[in-house]
Amino acid sequence: MAQSRQLRLGAFMRPASIHTGAWRYPGAWPDANFNFPRLRRLAQTLERARFDAFFMADHLAVLNMPLEALKRSHTATSFEPFTLLSALAGATEHIGLVATASTTFDEAYHIARRFASLDHISGGRAGWNVVTTSNPDAALNFGLTDHVDHDERYRRAREFYDVVTGLWDSWADDAFIRDVESGIFFDPARMHVLDHKGEHLSVRGPLNIARPVQGWPVIVQAGSSEAGRQLAAETAEAVFTAPATLADGRRFYADVKGRMEKLGRDRDHMKILPACFVVVGDTLEEAKAKRARLDSLVHYDSAIASLSVALGHDASRFDPDGPLPPVPETNQSKSGRERAIQLAEREGLTVRQLAQRLGGYAGLAIVGTPASIADTMEEWLFTEGSDGFNIMFPYLPGGLDDFAEKVVPVLQDRGLFRRDYEGTTLRENLGLPRPANRFF
Amino acid sequence: MAQSRQLRLGAFMRPASIHTGAWRYPGAWPDANFNFPRLRRLAQTLERARFDAFFMADHLAVLNMPLEALKRSHTATSFEPFTLLSALAGATEHIGLVATASTTFDEAYHIARRFASLDHISGGRAGWNVVTTSNPDAALNFGLTDHVDHDERYRRAREFYDVVTGLWDSWADDAFIRDVESGIFFDPARMHVLDHKGEHLSVRGPLNIARPVQGWPVIVQAGSSEAGRQLAAETAEAVFTAPATLADGRRFYADVKGRMEKLGRDRDHMKILPACFVVVGDTLEEAKAKRARLDSLVHYDSAIASLSVALGHDASRFDPDGPLPPVPETNQSKSGRERAIQLAEREGLTVRQLAQRLGGYAGLAIVGTPASIADTMEEWLFTEGSDGFNIMFPYLPGGLDDFAEKVVPVLQDRGLFRRDYEGTTLRENLGLPRPANRFF
Repeated sequence: MAQSRQLRLGAFMRPASIHTGAWRYPGAWPDANFNFPRLRRLAQTLERARFDAFFMADHLAVLNMPLEALKRSHTATSFEPFTLLSALAGATEHIGLVATASTTFDEAYHIARRFASLDHISGGRAGWNVVTTSNPDAALNFGLTDHVDHDERYRRAREFYDVVTGLWDSWADDAFIRDVESGIFFDPARMHVLDHKGEHLSVRGPLNIARPVQGWPVIVQAGSSEAGRQLAAETAEAVFTAPATLADGRRFYADVKGRMEKLGRDRDHMKILPACFVVVGDTLEEAKAKRARLDSLVHYDSAIASLSVALGHDASRFDPDGPLPPVPETNQSKSGRERAIQLAEREGLTVRQLAQRLGGYAGLAIVGTPASIADTMEEWLFTEGSDGFNIMFPYLPGGLDDFAEKVVPVLQDRGLFRRDYEGTTLRENLGLPRPANRFF
Repeated sequence: MAQSRQLRLGAFMRPASIHTGAWRYPGAWPDANFNFPRLRRLAQTLERARFDAFFMADHLAVLNMPLEALKRSHTATSFEPFTLLSALAGATEHIGLVATASTTFDEAYHIARRFASLDHISGGRAGWNVVTTSNPDAALNFGLTDHVDHDERYRRAREFYDVVTGLWDSWADDAFIRDVESGIFFDPARMHVLDHKGEHLSVRGPLNIARPVQGWPVIVQAGSSEAGRQLAAETAEAVFTAPATLADGRRFYADVKGRMEKLGRDRDHMKILPACFVVVGDTLEEAKAKRARLDSLVHYDSAIASLSVALGHDASRFDPDGPLPPVPETNQSKSGRERAIQLAEREGLTVRQLAQRLGGYAGLAIVGTPASIADTMEEWLFTEGSDGFNIMFPYLPGGLDDFAEKVVPVLQDRGLFRRDYEGTTLRENLGLPRPANRFF
């Protein structure tokens, strides 16, 4: 197999583990999500393993789940992305730092400025995960009683992107001459006043910080709707997706890369990185046992609530230790019901096991040995299912250490993953071009 | 003299040096204001010298000065406060980190969250300099064509403060129990939903981060107007002021501490820290020569513009090397004219020297030997002129190193300044109480 195609690996680190049972796993840190020295240690391990990026999802509210489930969740609270990633910038040298920031509930000038500042402080390692924020609870924290409509949010996001990138281009790369002799600090001819007046935003500029080291921090997105895919094709350089299967992944990959080409963009200038939950064992049985153990730590109250939502049917009266009984079809959640039934059949799960799987993490997962995990990743990479993955760890630090120490060396031995960082910036490591300044 | 009263020292670090000529001083770093490794080195020096806090002023626009002056200014651009201070949090252990954030151009939920996050990451070292942002250029960067009126800004600021502190109290200090055995991560009875609906803000809560280490980050203010003083008396725990003389300082001190007592607050629960530009020499003559050298590096074009503004009269036709000629009184800037004329007479300055003083830094300054500087500070401290100072350094790193290495030991020998930090948090070091949670 050709060695030229390389995996890109992000680490999905908010929550530090997505699995609801993670904090209760034997040996795990219950406070991994909210303890700076521990997050610093994890970031440093990821950097030694040559990960491309530390990725921080974000929420602008306490997660909207029933209190009975919320009180059992280690994800209820978290650090704010810019403060955490800036602190990690000082404790790492190579790994990319991708912060989620909302185009609906923040100001373009603030966002442009913070990413530029993070990019300078980190020596060119910042990435912006552009989100439009679909959580209606967030609106209530920002003075709105109704959530902003989906299409409206995407139109604003597109304009917001134009303004932020325009502000990043406020200064030519060579604007700051700092000539001690003549006393000229910058060349005013190399400063641009944006003076944007659009449908949603009115922003004068210039930005009060020099152009970012990377020109622009790397643009990341995760939207999967029609509007989300189109915005990604127009603007994104990395996309985080959540396909359920390789076939799903390939459809998404072909669709979005096709849209890029129609827009005249080079398809290699976007890296598609599905979210993937990885459980490593020395044998397949050990890996499966780890996952079963982890799922068993999801409290039954939370678990059965998740199963009921998936089925569109109250599952609380089912025998927890029996097989899933026949469930009538309802108008709600057809695909969720179908997937749950298939999952129970495929793996022979009891009601309890099925509920705990859904209440833990039910998305794309690779559970196996380092070799079998590498096999699966290789298949995705070479059949255009993805350009790499955004890895979710089952518990911390063990699940992350297992990936770093056992899976990464196998990927490296197969020539699928770097042994050293290619460059000094996130953009260079991902193989993305540095954007030209549109004004100079 | 009693040894109980202790100086509190902040370092005014945005810009890293306020003096317009700083970046051109022999041996200075021209990029000190915008180079993370250099700022880290300065913060570490300040910490070794036991400074209370690294203070970052802020502007939400490129400074509004004439382009001819702006292009010669090292303060035109800067890092964003939260990203810089978070990165410094990882590189220091004791020094307080005070960020300026605007109540006019930001959201209360964002501000509450970022300061809480910085406070957790730094182990309790965050402070919030509450500003209402009077720069009209800032409004243009945030979708507003007219600047918000002064009284309106202060009414919003008061409500904003209530919301931010209310959000910080969203969780009891003991809410997060993380009981692995029972699977309870937090106690829902120890979470409070703010549900604020006021004149300017509507914010539901709860905040998605635990209560700050300090309960609340230290509240700092700098307003000197009637509304600013009253807000400070009601809410502030540290106040940065800009008196021109000790008499000014004492009037402000008596006024604001008196207001506090009327409100039932303990006068020791606010530290008043005037901004003070300090130039250190081994002799008085050397200190004066350093300042004259520094002033001489202010370009004459910038300098004469500053003098013209101060006099309310075009000074560009005056003989630069002659004495200040008689200047007719105008309706503009009476106090500025008066101060400039007095300064020229008192120090026997030529037009050029006067212009360069005004174009460099014309506020409160102490220029002298370590002993004479300590004398002056002691006088302020013991005559209720202040509780300490917010020090501005003339150039970097030399001006800061001189203060740390030469002045601080004298202050310590006199028992006026700590040899070791008193506690682990900014609040403990400043001698401020930890606020009770209003809901638990």
